[in-house]
Amino acid sequence: MRPSGRAPDQMRPISITPNFTRHAEGSVLIAFGDTRVLVTASVEERVPPFLRGKGEGWVTAEYGMLPRATHTRGNREAAKGKQSGRTQEIQRLIGRSLRAVTDLKLLGERQITLDCDVLQADGGTRTAAISGAWVALRMAVDGLMQSGKLTVDPIQQKIAAVSCGIYEGTPVLDLDYPEDSAAHADGNFVILEDGRFAEVQATAEGACYDEEALLRLLRLARMGCTEIFRAQAEALR
Amino acid sequence: MRPSGRAPDQMRPISITPNFTRHAEGSVLIAFGDTRVLVTASVEERVPPFLRGKGEGWVTAEYGMLPRATHTRGNREAAKGKQSGRTQEIQRLIGRSLRAVTDLKLLGERQITLDCDVLQADGGTRTAAISGAWVALRMAVDGLMQSGKLTVDPIQQKIAAVSCGIYEGTPVLDLDYPEDSAAHADGNFVILEDGRFAEVQATAEGACYDEEALLRLLRLARMGCTEIFRAQAEALR
Amino acid sequence: MRPSGRAPDQMRPISITPNFTRHAEGSVLIAFGDTRVLVTASVEERVPPFLRGKGEGWVTAEYGMLPRATHTRGNREAAKGKQSGRTQEIQRLIGRSLRAVTDLKLLGERQITLDCDVLQADGGTRTAAISGAWVALRMAVDGLMQSGKLTVDPIQQKIAAVSCGIYEGTPVLDLDYPEDSAAHADGNFVILEDGRFAEVQATAEGACYDEEALLRLLRLARMGCTEIFRAQAEALR
Amino acid sequence: MRPSGRAPDQMRPISITPNFTRHAEGSVLIAFGDTRVLVTASVEERVPPFLRGKGEGWVTAEYGMLPRATHTRGNREAAKGKQSGRTQEIQRLIGRSLRAVTDLKLLGERQITLDCDVLQADGGTRTAAISGAWVALRMAVDGLMQSGKLTVDPIQQKIAAVSCGIYEGTPVLDLDYPEDSAAHADGNFVILEDGRFAEVQATAEGACYDEEALLRLLRLARMGCTEIFRAQAEALR
Amino acid sequence: MRPSGRAPDQMRPISITPNFTRHAEGSVLIAFGDTRVLVTASVEERVPPFLRGKGEGWVTAEYGMLPRATHTRGNREAAKGKQSGRTQEIQRLIGRSLRAVTDLKLLGERQITLDCDVLQADGGTRTAAISGAWVALRMAVDGLMQSGKLTVDPIQQKIAAVSCGIYEGTPVLDLDYPEDSAAHADGNFVILEDGRFAEVQATAEGACYDEEALLRLLRLARMGCTEIFRAQAEALR
Amino acid sequence: MRPSGRAPDQMRPISITPNFTRHAEGSVLIAFGDTRVLVTASVEERVPPFLRGKGEGWVTAEYGMLPRATHTRGNREAAKGKQSGRTQEIQRLIGRSLRAVTDLKLLGERQITLDCDVLQADGGTRTAAISGAWVALRMAVDGLMQSGKLTVDPIQQKIAAVSCGIYEGTPVLDLDYPEDSAAHADGNFVILEDGRFAEVQATAEGACYDEEALLRLLRLARMGCTEIFRAQAEALR
Repeated sequence: MRPSGRAPDQMRPISITPNFTRHAEGSVLIAFGDTRVLVTASVEERVPPFLRGKGEGWVTAEYGMLPRATHTRGNREAAKGKQSGRTQEIQRLIGRSLRAVTDLKLLGERQITLDCDVLQADGGTRTAAISGAWVALRMAVDGLMQSGKLTVDPIQQKIAAVSCGIYEGTPVLDLDYPEDSAAHADGNFVILEDGRFAEVQATAEGACYDEEALLRLLRLARMGCTEIFRAQAEALR
Repeated sequence: MRPSGRAPDQMRPISITPNFTRHAEGSVLIAFGDTRVLVTASVEERVPPFLRGKGEGWVTAEYGMLPRATHTRGNREAAKGKQSGRTQEIQRLIGRSLRAVTDLKLLGERQITLDCDVLQADGGTRTAAISGAWVALRMAVDGLMQSGKLTVDPIQQKIAAVSCGIYEGTPVLDLDYPEDSAAHADGNFVILEDGRFAEVQATAEGACYDEEALLRLLRLARMGCTEIFRAQAEALR
Repeated sequence: MRPSGRAPDQMRPISITPNFTRHAEGSVLIAFGDTRVLVTASVEERVPPFLRGKGEGWVTAEYGMLPRATHTRGNREAAKGKQSGRTQEIQRLIGRSLRAVTDLKLLGERQITLDCDVLQADGGTRTAAISGAWVALRMAVDGLMQSGKLTVDPIQQKIAAVSCGIYEGTPVLDLDYPEDSAAHADGNFVILEDGRFAEVQATAEGACYDEEALLRLLRLARMGCTEIFRAQAEALR
Repeated sequence: MRPSGRAPDQMRPISITPNFTRHAEGSVLIAFGDTRVLVTASVEERVPPFLRGKGEGWVTAEYGMLPRATHTRGNREAAKGKQSGRTQEIQRLIGRSLRAVTDLKLLGERQITLDCDVLQADGGTRTAAISGAWVALRMAVDGLMQSGKLTVDPIQQKIAAVSCGIYEGTPVLDLDYPEDSAAHADGNFVILEDGRFAEVQATAEGACYDEEALLRLLRLARMGCTEIFRAQAEALR
Repeated sequence: MRPSGRAPDQMRPISITPNFTRHAEGSVLIAFGDTRVLVTASVEERVPPFLRGKGEGWVTAEYGMLPRATHTRGNREAAKGKQSGRTQEIQRLIGRSLRAVTDLKLLGERQITLDCDVLQADGGTRTAAISGAWVALRMAVDGLMQSGKLTVDPIQQKIAAVSCGIYEGTPVLDLDYPEDSAAHADGNFVILEDGRFAEVQATAEGACYDEEALLRLLRLARMGCTEIFRAQAEALR
Repeated sequence: MRPSGRAPDQMRPISITPNFTRHAEGSVLIAFGDTRVLVTASVEERVPPFLRGKGEGWVTAEYGMLPRATHTRGNREAAKGKQSGRTQEIQRLIGRSLRAVTDLKLLGERQITLDCDVLQADGGTRTAAISGAWVALRMAVDGLMQSGKLTVDPIQQKIAAVSCGIYEGTPVLDLDYPEDSAAHADGNFVILEDGRFAEVQATAEGACYDEEALLRLLRLARMGCTEIFRAQAEALR
């Protein structure tokens, strides 16, 4: 039995609120249950130094967690003077996932930055961030197309992400915090609408897992992403 | 005429949403018009090293602005590796203001940290932060009293803050961003319910001001704080 | 009775020694009693990036305190690897105050940096720094005019600064360290020769203050600045 | 055809030189072809603060690359003043992998740090590091057992790691640098001797991959690890 | 001919002003010509962690240069966030030199920190710092003895330092800035009153030097230190 | 009697392995007994900002020590976020020594960086680094000449370095770690093949030394360097 009473293949309620803030070219508040992440997409008409003059664009992400998004207060990274390894790992994953569905040549020499800030955390912040970031990116690119700055759409696929893990011996979908901290293995899966993978990361936490278990996690993840794709589509309608 | 069409002594709509997030001992989302600040109060049963063993508590604040809270994206302070002078100045002001109304001896050896994170900025973020922080602090202390950890209330006064400035020659209340960037002088006023001041900061930006102008700003600030006190009371009901 | 035996409206002896060091374009050692600050003005024929190509100049300040300027040794900020919030707040105030009396367009595309280093501290270091910085700036601009690099004087006003506070219930002028650490409220006032303000900062430390008290502090500050203006004029003769 | 002429399921020559340096409790130089990583295991009779007094040990890793381990010189992280996101991600992976096969309770209140320094890089540095780190850890634990500090072996499994990827449409084992920079997808697989996984990380680089491709990569990885287990055993003989 | 017109074995005028500031346990302003360094000695009744509980004291030094001590303004190290290699090298030399004449056991578990801040630079700042630091240290130790905290003098020798170099082919004593920047070789010599050396550092700058040249520099340095010992004695009278 | 049983004027065995790694333009592993330093020379066709457009090149060095090169593990400088004063002092010495024998004008607008990483430490790491760096530099310059990028050899001299010290009253050559930590004085000597000095640094550690002792150290150092020059020549054959 899951602490929340959910079935093993049951997602938490997903909500995606578009235009949660007004300055950014794309902005959503995405919630997977009590996990809430504010994502903004910022378009800048310049690229990082390593891309200058190459006629290509860049999509990147930054991730942060408010100090009291969690049960006990964490130190503010700006005050500590550096981002943790965890933060860097997550923001690299988000950026890589979105670049996997973007044709950077078609984007032209501009950069889109996805800022993913966790207002409240209850497990799955990085997968909520990726799922919300795709919507914010979509909104920003739609704006570029409406304004005529882009004529061909550089976004090639829909993408979503969800975590799954083995909790008390059972593979379950969309871990919340109590499950996440007790799971024997957990993974993050970044999936296209056609079922292919952009990223699979599955980590043993206390007990290694076999191929069969991995395949069950993959299947759960695909089920979860189907729901997320639906929520993304609704938010963009 | 103000860009927003407001009268010189007219505040923007104030809204204070309590319990915007769920983990913190106190939490509000405060809005002065389009300025929106998430404030959480975190209680920790330990004090900073300089206070250990003195039987006194501490109230402190940290301030941050999400990178795309503003019209153009700013760098993330955690990524730059340091907090700007502006950030430090603001968080020192917030902490000092709340300590001005708290009896630290009555608080006992514990620390309350007010995290003020700007989700959207349109002028007046530091005064909104102070005004919201008082509510979050109130909620956290109420919790300590309900749980019996405190028996005498250490909060001695209500406090609120607002900015005023001289815009196109006219003293106006509660500057929004277009006014703030064009004002000849602006000030931040932290005021008790009985009209006394915890802090007055008035700065010339382009034109120095005389005592009469300062007095008019003080009067506007008192009017504004009256409205904020009302909104605080409603949020706590 | 003040610890020093001074009358409430009595400044400490002011001394301003011009040309205390020889490499800078302007250099003074300013003393308010035992507070001694070395200020140099450095002219550079370039402006910070945000001003390049705009035909305008910049005036800025940096502030530091030697580790043993104080009663007990403080850590060296260069060794700690960062400037404290207090340091940043002070150097921002000094720079802002001097820009308030300088026409940056008339200055042309050059930068003048005021380095204010406290050799010995006994309260009021920031106001001594501002008062001395104006003299150093004046010397540097005089040099630019004598060399023909400037033909119209960009300095539009004289400016001075002093601290005042409420010590044992009495408003007093020019707080020294024993007063500063015991005052119920203290303020820093940056004032033009015609009596107008560039900056008013008044902070409650233990007891909030009313408008009447603020007005008395303003009046004391004006009296103090009159003496400082005299000392500045003598130093420049 | 692979640039090196290897068959798709062919590892590069593996060599593991034990006792490459003499001060550490465990030390190996591991080579996968031209990739060479020096790994040392250091035993310290203390644990990090979060574990103090809990009767448990800790295994952790640090990773570095000499500036000229690569084709063009990279900046030295010590000189830049921070470790890159890539470095942090890799050292977190190494530490997690070794903890997956260590019973931290049996280890007792001591820490073993695996320092993995890349002397020469040609693809696969993180997997070579994990594979070598297991040997260094084994040597260090053997020393603790020989000296009587441990009586029950805390290492529960053998572990090895290898990278695989899809190069010009073909899944291949043990990517070298030319393959790694051109692969459409690549993954790192950390595997126990019984075939179970401690970690699977598979990332699309230019083309997303389906489940069948992932399964083929898993199979190749198991084949590679079989060879690494053999080399580990020989090094320890 | 030297730029200053001095003879090859002629020091610049030396002046040592004791008690230049009042808070420190020892304080001097030392000048070698236009080079002026403020040195304070601070006594603290605690030692660094590596010495705790060993019954020994510590003598250490920190060095800084005000941004406009030099002909053109240098960046402030506190603002840059780190001390340069040159700064660290110099402060290590100063500390080592003073420890060479102090019996740390006799000093007891306390630390004396010598802060050497260059107010004006014209070559030879590190040797002026060492020479002045000895006087400040002497003053601080005298205070400890007068107050009864020490009964046996831990300072075992007098020490002074001077720079020499080969300028236009001629070995000269006490390089000023124009000589220093053009010298083919220069050295810093830290010398006891009995003629023995605590430190010899001689560096080729453009032309390597032979043993005979080194010996001539040593002889000049001894002559210079004789004068410095005289000035130290006078300052302490 | 020396701990190693060596005669006072006896070097440890010297070995220099060229081409220890393959990517760098020059690469050696140099060993003085158990001290082993990997040195690479990297050629880059650009110079640091202060030299741009001056038609001159630059030779510089960086130094690092692997965390477990020593008896007990040291912290990784990249993880601490800064290089120690010792590291900076050593890398400045290495760079200066190599520039002393290089005609930077003849080198042209390119930079050669010598990375010296200590794999195993047993005293004398900085002198081994200099001695090895000269070989790596020689190899890199030979490559530039063979490729026709240089036609005139910019290396003007051979250079080597060795440490000497006074151990139990006797001057000895090439201190190993047990001697180094107990020596009363030690020095590092950087010497040309014709016997002249690029750098002499001799430091008292517990007992100051007289001129005669210094001269004996110089003589020992010359003897040691003769052997090093022989090993360098062999490595380059």
